[in-house]
Amino acid sequence: MLYKNLSVNNEGHLTIAGVDSVYLAKKYGTPLYVMDEELVRHRCRIQQSAIEKYCAPGSMILFASKALSMKEMYRIAKQENIGVDVVSSGELYTALSVDFPAEKIFFHGSSKTDFDISYGIDNGIGYFIVDNVEELEAISEYAGKKDVTQNILLRLAPGIDPHTFEAVKTGKVDSKFGVAIETGQAMEITEKALNTPNVQLMGFHCHIGSQIFDIEPFCDGADIMLGFMKEVKDKFGFETEILNIGGGLGVKYVEGEPEIDYHQCIVDACKYVNDKCDEKGLRQPILLMEPGRSIVADAGVTLYTVNSTKTIPGYKSYIAVDGGMGDNPRFALYGAKHSALIANKASEPADFHCTLAGRCCESDDVICEDIDIQKAERGDIAAVLTTGAYNYSMASNYNRVCRPPIVMLKGGEDRVVVRRETFDDLTACDL
Amino acid sequence: MLYKNLSVNNEGHLTIAGVDSVYLAKKYGTPLYVMDEELVRHRCRIQQSAIEKYCAPGSMILFASKALSMKEMYRIAKQENIGVDVVSSGELYTALSVDFPAEKIFFHGSSKTDFDISYGIDNGIGYFIVDNVEELEAISEYAGKKDVTQNILLRLAPGIDPHTFEAVKTGKVDSKFGVAIETGQAMEITEKALNTPNVQLMGFHCHIGSQIFDIEPFCDGADIMLGFMKEVKDKFGFETEILNIGGGLGVKYVEGEPEIDYHQCIVDACKYVNDKCDEKGLRQPILLMEPGRSIVADAGVTLYTVNSTKTIPGYKSYIAVDGGMGDNPRFALYGAKHSALIANKASEPADFHCTLAGRCCESDDVICEDIDIQKAERGDIAAVLTTGAYNYSMASNYNRVCRPPIVMLKGGEDRVVVRRETFDDLTACDL
Repeated sequence: MLYKNLSVNNEGHLTIAGVDSVYLAKKYGTPLYVMDEELVRHRCRIQQSAIEKYCAPGSMILFASKALSMKEMYRIAKQENIGVDVVSSGELYTALSVDFPAEKIFFHGSSKTDFDISYGIDNGIGYFIVDNVEELEAISEYAGKKDVTQNILLRLAPGIDPHTFEAVKTGKVDSKFGVAIETGQAMEITEKALNTPNVQLMGFHCHIGSQIFDIEPFCDGADIMLGFMKEVKDKFGFETEILNIGGGLGVKYVEGEPEIDYHQCIVDACKYVNDKCDEKGLRQPILLMEPGRSIVADAGVTLYTVNSTKTIPGYKSYIAVDGGMGDNPRFALYGAKHSALIANKASEPADFHCTLAGRCCESDDVICEDIDIQKAERGDIAAVLTTGAYNYSMASNYNRVCRPPIVMLKGGEDRVVVRRETFDDLTACDL
Repeated sequence: MLYKNLSVNNEGHLTIAGVDSVYLAKKYGTPLYVMDEELVRHRCRIQQSAIEKYCAPGSMILFASKALSMKEMYRIAKQENIGVDVVSSGELYTALSVDFPAEKIFFHGSSKTDFDISYGIDNGIGYFIVDNVEELEAISEYAGKKDVTQNILLRLAPGIDPHTFEAVKTGKVDSKFGVAIETGQAMEITEKALNTPNVQLMGFHCHIGSQIFDIEPFCDGADIMLGFMKEVKDKFGFETEILNIGGGLGVKYVEGEPEIDYHQCIVDACKYVNDKCDEKGLRQPILLMEPGRSIVADAGVTLYTVNSTKTIPGYKSYIAVDGGMGDNPRFALYGAKHSALIANKASEPADFHCTLAGRCCESDDVICEDIDIQKAERGDIAAVLTTGAYNYSMASNYNRVCRPPIVMLKGGEDRVVVRRETFDDLTACDL
């Protein structure tokens, strides 16, 4: 099994966190997102405890909402005493709706609207992570109107390319995100921020990419950021209080990919930053990191019902299921890989070579391409692993398919935390 | 201007079907989908009139719901006396909710669930387009229980590759869709269908791909289908009543792409099929075609507000808007191209070379890459053209951004046909 929380019971059924997946599929119907709450909480704790122990007081991890934004996730984040980042008013609304503490919310995004800015300030969020000059001015203007001072970080592009997917390289100089250090623009916006009324510059942010299995790119990024902080200190006498080095720690999706010790990774990153600060004569900043995928991805499994198995002699075979790019667009978007098995035949040999195809009317609606899986027939249950991140959050109603519910497992019990969409939901906005 | 229904008024604003786009953006907010109803109806009429005039009585076009499924589109299709195809119970529900005639609904899809089948039969839909053997059996079983006979077509893979995007090649032999003629499996399922109780085989379907600018691949596909129909007639004495040659006629997205005379294309296809039938001694079948994109794509424009303009010296420039892959995932999915302009500066020179980037926290959230557009600043309105197909239907709430409304224009009047999502909608399923 790919992960420790997966097993096979006496009936040959896949179990997730000790719960029979076939029972879940029958009880709730399919497609169905299932999540292991204890794994989610464990990941929050090992990451938070590392950063708390080794970094300046106030250091914390911020759950990256974009990976999985739902009320229950903010409840868990609140209980685990971590912060969150949001990239829209909708994510902020969801967090606030379960009384997530506003001061631990960081508002991200490269294209904030006037509404985002007023909504964030009106609700007293902790920080805006400012992406560009126009946004800085808009925040200052609205904060001025309200006669408040808004804490901000500045998002910088350190120019790191962690050699991952094109789509998730975000720390490059040529990026829609942030302000480049290399071009001198980061220094300009820093000077401007220090002289802009109604905003209080608290520090800097960078994010170098996604699915990074090595701490080195983070250290490289931190190096560049610390060098910049030193320059800023020398030039303006401004001592950076907060350094946010973003997210991007990798998750194992298929056999052969590494499994990261997240606690140790963060410990190493903290120590590296502290040592470098001492070297440069900088005060150790409050360190923030933004894990999303590494909190929720492998806690999630999607269950589908098989509708057909098709073998095209001389070509290949397909197993078609009752979900697809609507609930998991990661193959269509990135050619991403997932592991899969037939949940009610989990003890049978995985000797059927095929492509697991989705139900959407589109050739590229594939969930797993060219995998080995158990032989299946109509009515079997397919389980696709590592779907806790960027599945529900990216889900669409393409082909007007209702989005699946999310069932959370804890202590052998199952409960719905997101209910299944209905036809009424689908047409709620249609006049 | 890319299309005839677009113009620039005295204030230098883009007009869509005679209505000021800046007025629309102000009235309804952004992002905003705008659609030209008269163009949609015109496209229905010129395609329907061609097929009606040149083919056997009963021949018609079926609007491919997946391009744009909403109540108003089914009302228009009903008024224009065309049929529709649906690929899910959700699309079927939407069509039925405005009393679209069930007998003109064709239920498509390569992975139909038991619910899809029972829901379709319970509602008396005209036809299932059967994709595979398991589905054929499931339809027969449920129809048997209900003591009805369900009309069906069989989806075949003619083995045509129209050399378009990988993602939208659907008529190849190696495909998740349908049953291949080349392998002999099409003949097997035909024989089985003829001997299966409670289903009535009425004919065959094929779909060769998307964005095809030439009638030739359709004729090639029809040729193969007619050859198969002849074989079936000779072998089983079965005369095909309905031939459905699918959709896929191309739409001009950017300058330099051809503009198709859809009426003439369909006339040519009809004549070709008729002549070939005469040649082969086949009765001219009822011909069906499934236009989706060519009905709605260029009737749609998306309006956005510009949030920032960023120039990275030595690299490139970005204009960031308040929407993105949430409302238009076509670049992220296919690298698709769209044309764009600054709607409130439409008479100024388009001399700013940049990438139009979306608001999502993802590098690949781009709407138009490397385009020339008017210089813009925060608060300007950007218009992205040809967004009527596969934008609203594929939209997601990624980053918890509310999906935009659709405003329909007719006779200079504007009206909402899909309202904007609210934060309550976003969290409606969250427990």
